[in-house]
Order: sequence, then structure tokens, then C-alpha cells
Amino acid sequence: MVPALCISIFGGEWQSAVAFLKTMGLIFVLAHGLIFFGRKSKKNFFAKEGLACVGLSWIVMGLLGCLPFYLSGAIPKFIDAFFEIVSGFTTTGASILTEIEGLPKGILYWRSFSHWLGGMGVLVFLLAISSFGGGDNGFTMHLLRAESPGPNVGKLVPKMKQTAGILYLLYIVLTILDVFFLLAGGMSLFEAVCTAFGTAGTGGFGVKNDSIAGYSPYIQNVCTVFMLLFGVNFSCYYMLLLRQVKSVFKDEELRMYLGMVAGSILLIVWNLRGVYGTLEETVRHAAFQVASIVTTTGYATTDFDLWPGFSKAILLCLMIIGASAGSTGGGFKCSRVLLVLKSLRRSVRQVVHPQMVQVVRVNGQPISEKVLSNTNAYLAAYAIITVGSFLLVSLDGFSITTNISAVVACFNNIGPGFEMVGPTGNFSAFSGFSKLVLIMDMLAGRLEIFPILILFSRTTWKHR
Amino acid sequence: MVPALCISIFGGEWQSAVAFLKTMGLIFVLAHGLIFFGRKSKKNFFAKEGLACVGLSWIVMGLLGCLPFYLSGAIPKFIDAFFEIVSGFTTTGASILTEIEGLPKGILYWRSFSHWLGGMGVLVFLLAISSFGGGDNGFTMHLLRAESPGPNVGKLVPKMKQTAGILYLLYIVLTILDVFFLLAGGMSLFEAVCTAFGTAGTGGFGVKNDSIAGYSPYIQNVCTVFMLLFGVNFSCYYMLLLRQVKSVFKDEELRMYLGMVAGSILLIVWNLRGVYGTLEETVRHAAFQVASIVTTTGYATTDFDLWPGFSKAILLCLMIIGASAGSTGGGFKCSRVLLVLKSLRRSVRQVVHPQMVQVVRVNGQPISEKVLSNTNAYLAAYAIITVGSFLLVSLDGFSITTNISAVVACFNNIGPGFEMVGPTGNFSAFSGFSKLVLIMDMLAGRLEIFPILILFSRTTWKHR
Repeated sequence: MVPALCISIFGGEWQSAVAFLKTMGLIFVLAHGLIFFGRKSKKNFFAKEGLACVGLSWIVMGLLGCLPFYLSGAIPKFIDAFFEIVSGFTTTGASILTEIEGLPKGILYWRSFSHWLGGMGVLVFLLAISSFGGGDNGFTMHLLRAESPGPNVGKLVPKMKQTAGILYLLYIVLTILDVFFLLAGGMSLFEAVCTAFGTAGTGGFGVKNDSIAGYSPYIQNVCTVFMLLFGVNFSCYYMLLLRQVKSVFKDEELRMYLGMVAGSILLIVWNLRGVYGTLEETVRHAAFQVASIVTTTGYATTDFDLWPGFSKAILLCLMIIGASAGSTGGGFKCSRVLLVLKSLRRSVRQVVHPQMVQVVRVNGQPISEKVLSNTNAYLAAYAIITVGSFLLVSLDGFSITTNISAVVACFNNIGPGFEMVGPTGNFSAFSGFSKLVLIMDMLAGRLEIFPILILFSRTTWKHR
Repeated sequence: MVPALCISIFGGEWQSAVAFLKTMGLIFVLAHGLIFFGRKSKKNFFAKEGLACVGLSWIVMGLLGCLPFYLSGAIPKFIDAFFEIVSGFTTTGASILTEIEGLPKGILYWRSFSHWLGGMGVLVFLLAISSFGGGDNGFTMHLLRAESPGPNVGKLVPKMKQTAGILYLLYIVLTILDVFFLLAGGMSLFEAVCTAFGTAGTGGFGVKNDSIAGYSPYIQNVCTVFMLLFGVNFSCYYMLLLRQVKSVFKDEELRMYLGMVAGSILLIVWNLRGVYGTLEETVRHAAFQVASIVTTTGYATTDFDLWPGFSKAILLCLMIIGASAGSTGGGFKCSRVLLVLKSLRRSVRQVVHPQMVQVVRVNGQPISEKVLSNTNAYLAAYAIITVGSFLLVSLDGFSITTNISAVVACFNNIGPGFEMVGPTGNFSAFSGFSKLVLIMDMLAGRLEIFPILILFSRTTWKHR
């Protein structure tokens, strides 16, 4: 919060500065209280503790992170402030704010910075910069597993801490590159940094009421490219650094991701013929919106809620599929879709040839039955949470499209949906209860369901 | 088609009578041509042949069954006639007709009878009344498996033919009871028989433009009760006949089904307070619509598209879940939801206690890993088909709610959806291509996906 505090002080925004100071003081007291009163246990940490720890940390992080919004008076209701910061940390980008440009700069910075922090994982960040967890034990592995998106997170290098460090280094370099290209397009430093935070974390909070629509075509195209770059599995970049170019371009998930993006842009351009003046404009808007939705960023350059039905249907499907595993994007993830499709194909083949033993392979490597059954369990949890949340949010009485797209947009960490929660709308009209449901959806989506689901299981809280 | 032909002749509807005669003649010629020119193979039939045979039979059945509609001029376009009869055989009840009451009676009878025939399964019917398949070989078992709804179809008695016979006997007795109760409410014999066909097959084609809304409260309540009865697993009735009352009421699927129905009615009555004049009317409409949707029948007594959002959300969820396995209803099936929920709970527990071996049980019986993984594959296929069909149907440019609910209503064999395809609307506005997609959805839904999916797999058509 230090940079945000500095911005507030230099901008003369005293209310925000005081709010940041109060929050920082509270966090300091709480943290030292926990260290002082906490039991020092030497027992080993297992998957259960790792998952529950991540789930609880993110909830506490939201409760503390929203205090600057609430204490400065920028967001008067606590549940709204909580919604906004969870939307930030989970890189959702769904907002309850109707007016953004009038907010103090320090608050806007904190709002955008939450995307950047949440994008790669806050605990991974701690892992990278500190000796937290005491080195390379099982606990740190479980933490990284629980916080990083995707079905099968591996270590890039044998040491966990180094892996986290490499990931964050790539993340920082790409973000700086993004800022540089945005500055070249004439953006102010403040706007460029905030926009880059939103792009890097695939979050979507902007500093303008009309998102990216008011900026020049050059800046819009820069955003399109960087959104797509942040939706790629970061291990691909690591491979590129190691000059393993061939294996990168043979990566099935990367191929699927790029193919899906290209196909969607083509289909939408075809569907949008006649809507915009020139082909350049059509391609620019189609590419921007596809990149924004598939990477679950949520920036917008045009009101895609007004697009024809087929284009909207494509966007809704992209919302659900989401970006690559191991990227900062959300959603079900391309690699999971690949696994589900491949295991379905195997099921059909097994009906045809019951005696044949068939192994599912990705990139030529056999996938263990455990990963496959976990992926299917993930799909089940995903479907059940979507349907259940839709039911609960429907209590507010809005339209079916609004409710479905609100749940999909929050659960997949996208931000805007359709109709009431479309690119020109926001989430302020929902009741406190619905906001709480959507907050849990955002957390479950960002942490890949199990760290949150486990908090609701009775067995988690039983003593062994 | 003989009863429909008789009704046409006695009603003096010559056009329909000629259409039925022509169709019967064509079927006669085709059938004998197939017998004459078909290769007589002595090789064994396996699962693959059973599934592909069922899938192809239902498509051919639709192509031939729609001829009376088309030849009589009742439905001028062939794709519409095909849509209507597939909707009949699959007990969907989605219609492209805007005006029902003006149709000839013979045609209306054939339309409703297709529900009754399709409800229990046409091939099972053949199995019950003929020596088709030459006794108790693997082929007949595969046929029954492929055509009967639910994840684990068992034989009630050791002989397949007897099992089919018992199922059909129960089906006939319940249908006759339904007709009897409807007659007691003052319905004409023709209307009572047609309405009972639609109820028994959980289809939903009626003989009135306003479905069941114009009938007396007594008749509406009779329909409610019988729709719910036809949504119960038929093996429960067989158990009742064997006086195993205790095991019936301990059946987890039955409990879930009844609990879900009761809960939904209560929630909708609460949500509808103030919409209707009296509590009796509210309860009657709520119970009727819940019974109609959860059993995937699709009759309506009121325009539920005008209900508040929460009630509509409950109905949408019920549409997806559907009735019990082994009933005539469609949808994902209660027992599959049970299995998915239980295997998800196991996955969460396995994260907490990785070393513990846990078995999923239903009614105290352990469920094999094969059934569980099949259920998960089913869920995957279900999700992929829903999303893919939604995308294709969206090409027509209607609203998201219309498109999603049209696909859900067809794929789960319900009939009406929301907005344009709501209880007062119909499917006539969709393009021919969308109708074809929805036809495949109806067939895939009725035959539980794999018999249709297998027709698209390359390995199915390869010679061994």
C-alpha cells in the first residue's frame, strides 16, 4: 500500500492517505498479534493445510484490502468495498462503481494494483521475495499448486523459490514492456501503469468510465496484443528463453488457444459485417473484445452487448473456456477443455472397442488417470457452482441473461457480462446477499474451486 | 399408424387417410426390401452395433414418421414435419405449429401417439411383443441399454424379453388409469387419450392451443399427479408390486426426486405470493409447472415466462436435472446428479485425506469406478453438446435466453423454454439449420447421447 499512500500524499488526497495509514496500522497490529499469539507448531503441512491456508488468506486479504475504499469514503457501503477489492485481487474486474473518473488517484492506483498482485498470486509473490515457509518443503509446493491456475502445475526448476522467482521476473518484464508501449502512444504515466496492471493481471479495472474506448486505435491494439500475451502459459516464455522454440510451437494448449482466438475473431468479423464503418474498425473491435474476453480481462472498446446474437454467443463460450493454464487468466482453462475433449473421445472409443486399453496423451505425454479424474471432478464442481450461484442470484429478480452472465463473469474472473452487467453496466443493483455469492464465486474461480470448497467441508475442520 | 388411419377415415379426413396409407405402403416396401436385400450375417452383435443400430433406427423412424404430416399438407415444410415428429418420438413436445386446434384429428392422434411410443422406447416395444433379435442374446441387452434412460439399467428379471414386457405392462396400466381419471373430469375420449399419451411419455403435445390452461382445476391436478408418477423409476413400481415397500422408500433417487419437487413447489409458491388471486390457484399452478418441467413433459397451465426471475431460475435448473432414471422423463437424470455430487464429495475428501480409500455408495451399494467415470464422461458430453448447440443456434440472431432455453428444452426433451420459445411461443421462427441442430439435440437427449455421438465417430465405421 506504500505506493498508493505516496500517490495520495503527493496528490493532496488527505482522506485517502489517512485511510491507507489506518489500514496499514491495522495490518501491522494484526500480523504481529498473529505472530505473537499464534501457536508455533512443528508438525508437517499437507495438501489440506495448504489449500485451507490459501482459501482463508484470500478472504482475509479481501477484508483488509477493502478498508482503504471504505475508510476513505470512496465506496460508502462495506459489502460494496469488499466486492470491489475481491474483484480486484481475483482479477475479475467486475465493478459496483458507476463513476470511476471522480475517484482519488491513490484509490484508483490501489484498485488497479490489486489486479497486478492477484494476477500471479499473492502468496507466490511472498514466496519469491522472502524466506517464507522456511525453504523447499511440501507446504510451499502446496501453496504454489493451490494459487497457480491450471490442472498440472510443475516446477520449472527444482527449487520452488526459484520457480516462483522466474515466474515473477517474466511477469515484471512483460508489464514494464506494456507500460513502455502505452507511454509511446501518448498515455500519461499514471494511466499507463494502471492500464498495464489491469492487462497484466487480466483484471480489467480501468481509470476511465468508458474503459479503453476513448483511447487511440494504437493504444487499443497494444492492449489487444498484451492481453493475448498474458493469456499464454508462462512456462512457454521460459521455454523460449531456453531457446526451445520448437517445443513451444508444438504445445497443444498454445495451439488451441491461438486457434480459438483466430477463429473467433474471423467469425465475429464476418458476423459484424456492416455494423462498423471500415474493415479496420471491425477487426480492431473484434480482436480487442475477443482478447479481452478469452483472457478474462474484461476491458472494452465498444458495447458488445449490442452485437448480434452469434457474436455474443461466441463471447459467452470464450468466457467459459478462458485462457491457458499457468497464465494470469481465469476461466475453465484451455488445457482442461483439451483434457475433457480427449477423455470424452476415449470414452466413445471404449464403447466401440471395449477391450482396447487407451491412454490419453497431451503433447505426446501420457496423462495419468488421477489427473483425468480430477479434471472431471473439476468440471462437476464447476457446473454445480455455476448452477447453484445462478439460482441464488436469481432471488433478486433480474433477467435470466443478466443472472447467468453475472455468475459466469464473476466465476470466470472476467468482469462484464450481458444486459444489466454488460460493458456499460455494473453490479451495483444486486442485493448484498447476491454480492456475497458473487464474491465467493470470484474467489472460487481464481483459486480453482478446491481451496474455497474445502472450507465448506466438515472433514477439513476435524482434528486428526 | 392403423388407429390414426381409422380415426382419419371415420372423421372423413380423406387427405390424412391417404397420407397414412401412402406412408404405410412405403414402410412396407422399404421393410421388405431391407429383409430381401439385407445381408444375413451370423456374426455376433456387440455394444457398438447395438448403439449405432438404435441411433440410426431413431433417425429413420423420424424420417418415415413425419410423412403423414408432410403428405397430408398439415405441415407444409418437410424440415418442420421432421422436427415435429422427432419432438414427438423423443417426447420433447417442442412444436413448430402456431395453430393446433385446426388440425385433422387423425394427425393430432398420430402426433400424441408418437409420445407414447417414444416414451418407453420403440425398440423395447418391439422386443416385448415379438421374437425380434432371436431371444436373449447380447444384442437385445445392448438395445435395451441404449434405449432406456439412466446410468445403470438392470434387468428386473433374468430374461430380457420378460423385463421389457413388465415395463410395458406397467406403462399401459398407468396410462389407462390416467385416461380413466381424465374421463371422470368430463374430457372427451379423444382428448383424454391424447392427453394421457402426452403425460405417459412425458412429451407435452396437447390438442389445445393453450395446452392444459383451459381445463378445470380437477383435470389440471390429475395431470400434475400423473406427470409426477411417470417421472418415477419404473422399477420402483415393480418393487411395490413385489411388496418391497420399505426398499422403495429408502431409494435415494426417489427421495431426491420427491424432495426436489416438494422444495421447488414451496419456493415457487413463496416467490409467487401476490401474483395469483388465491393460495389454491398459486399452489395448483406452481405444482403443475414444477411437475411438467421436472418430468420434462412440457404441458403448461399458465405462462411461466411471466413469473419472477427466481421462479424461472428454479424451472431452468429443474429442466437440466430432469426426472428419475428408468422413467419416461428426460434430462440429466436425478441418479446422475446424485452420482456427480457424491463423487465430487469424495474428491474433496481425497484432497483432505489423500491416503484414505473411499467408495461411492448409492442405496448402500458400492458404485464401480467404471460407472462413475462413465457418468463424468456423460457430464462432459452433456456440457459440450449444450455449449456447441447454443453456438450454432445463435447464428439465427435471437436473444441469449431464447437460444439457451431452446437448446436446453430440446436437449432435455422438455418442449417449452423461455422468451420466444416460451409456453405461448413456438420453434417455427428458427432457420432450417437450427431446426436440424435441435433435432439432433432431441435425439441425443432421448437416447442419452452415446448412440448419436457414436454415429459421428470415425472408428464406428471402420471394418475390423
